[in-house]
Amino acid sequence: MPHRIVHMLRAGGRGRRPVMLAIAGDSAAGKTTLTRGLVECLGADRMTAVCVDDYHRYDRAERRDKPFTALHPDCNYIEIMEQHLQLLSMGEPILKPVYDHSTGELVRPELVQPRDFVIVEGLLPLHTRLARACFDITVYLDPPERLRHQWKIQRDCAKRGYTPEQVRAELKRREPESAAYIRPQRRWADIVVRFAPVAGRTDPPDTPLSAELLLRPTIDHPELSDVLDDAEHRAMHLRLRRDTDGRPVDALHIHGYVPPEECQVVKKAIWERLGTGTTIPSSLGRLADGSTSDPLAITQLLLLYHLLDADRRQAA
Amino acid sequence: MPHRIVHMLRAGGRGRRPVMLAIAGDSAAGKTTLTRGLVECLGADRMTAVCVDDYHRYDRAERRDKPFTALHPDCNYIEIMEQHLQLLSMGEPILKPVYDHSTGELVRPELVQPRDFVIVEGLLPLHTRLARACFDITVYLDPPERLRHQWKIQRDCAKRGYTPEQVRAELKRREPESAAYIRPQRRWADIVVRFAPVAGRTDPPDTPLSAELLLRPTIDHPELSDVLDDAEHRAMHLRLRRDTDGRPVDALHIHGYVPPEECQVVKKAIWERLGTGTTIPSSLGRLADGSTSDPLAITQLLLLYHLLDADRRQAA
Repeated sequence: MPHRIVHMLRAGGRGRRPVMLAIAGDSAAGKTTLTRGLVECLGADRMTAVCVDDYHRYDRAERRDKPFTALHPDCNYIEIMEQHLQLLSMGEPILKPVYDHSTGELVRPELVQPRDFVIVEGLLPLHTRLARACFDITVYLDPPERLRHQWKIQRDCAKRGYTPEQVRAELKRREPESAAYIRPQRRWADIVVRFAPVAGRTDPPDTPLSAELLLRPTIDHPELSDVLDDAEHRAMHLRLRRDTDGRPVDALHIHGYVPPEECQVVKKAIWERLGTGTTIPSSLGRLADGSTSDPLAITQLLLLYHLLDADRRQAA
Repeated sequence: MPHRIVHMLRAGGRGRRPVMLAIAGDSAAGKTTLTRGLVECLGADRMTAVCVDDYHRYDRAERRDKPFTALHPDCNYIEIMEQHLQLLSMGEPILKPVYDHSTGELVRPELVQPRDFVIVEGLLPLHTRLARACFDITVYLDPPERLRHQWKIQRDCAKRGYTPEQVRAELKRREPESAAYIRPQRRWADIVVRFAPVAGRTDPPDTPLSAELLLRPTIDHPELSDVLDDAEHRAMHLRLRRDTDGRPVDALHIHGYVPPEECQVVKKAIWERLGTGTTIPSSLGRLADGSTSDPLAITQLLLLYHLLDADRRQAA
């Protein structure tokens, strides 16, 4: 060719770009549980879920000689992650690397075609500015550390063959990098989600955890006054407060101790707002152990609201 | 984020784009031999070589059940190949899939950082319009089929553990797809390279093959009148002729039977034109068996001319 053709990725010609949702958080913070209900609700034909922990630069054996853990950005192909997030957000397919958690090996990559909605969950999806710019909605999962440690010990012992001592040692080894690279992402979330028991209450042990959602004014949240705390509605209330860094924020509390009938009213009210016309899917609120949680279901409904709202605005 | 940020791949901010050279051709057409000399000459710190046969969609076991061979576009991630060629041409890194020829398996991908020059060789780099648009210089290797079959039998038996009968059966099986997908790429090459013995001559068996280079007017070729065929220079001559499809083309013949001293004059003349100031690298013209070929060396020098010329024009 006599002159280089200035070529563009084909984004423009492909029609709609997908709606991109990030779910960031530390290991065992609940990312997969939150994601699974959303994918089941919208359907795998409309939603693609991508885990960015697959962008490990080193396999488990290689990491043994490194001065950092898998949480460290240098342990991951951050630049390729950014590139792939950009491609997905433009509606382009990617050939995604795959890390096999059961063997600790990097294996054959897989083709990912973005659907109408893309959920990107993992340790570092909000680490860089370019990565953050790819998302329409950003979520950070922020459970109390005590609870997260307990969840990680349960999962890694049951599913990945470790002993509790090994998991505790690993948590300790990872703590400086959690503080340096994972937790600072909280700052960039439109919604910070914290599942925890309510302090000072003595509910029965099988009471679902309550949820606190910090709703930052970086996106437009749904108007919820008709289902907020009053004589009839005890399931949720909203408080204006300052975040730990002093920034103003709305804190939405969803109570786990409220009877299912009262939660149902709230779920139904948000579900109707989505305008899909069908009944509330049973996959919402499902926990890893098969039980269900209304605060989780309501959190997922709010995220569905944002996904469908962003989709509608793009279509308009 | 309240509105989606229209984001761009960072191309613009990274400085110079690499010069991109495609070397297309059928299996065992001599792509690796031609590429190796160029990489050794410019140095791995300045040149990246990529083989696009790594973009296989299926591994060897999966291909057994398919109605096509590895040559078929449907057997390859053509869309991802296009995407990666675009990224490389913009100076962006890629996480390239890797096909292990020794085991027939798809394995862990590898990071490829484009240097000043990128050579992309393989079966289908010129198959689509978008792929072709990524290259500054395109080459098609077009040896006589008889010779290519001989090379493929030699290589696949020596290096990949097949018997001659197996290779012959595979060549027969692939022939319809070679005709349908590989050979049509010849049409899109700026330079078509054919190594072959000169018809009607009875040179000793160790005489290097002569080369015929079709120089299409799609790029600016160097002015070579001072080293072309006359009383003093027998190594090369240039003939205006029509290609098999009737299109006008310059055919440059480089004779393998000419004594090394005469070839040296031609090599020196082209080398000086490159303006690098050093001496001709011994890696030029090296064949797979360790012997050397002046026609190959002169072909590589012409490609070096084009690479450095494109690089100079981009810098200007």
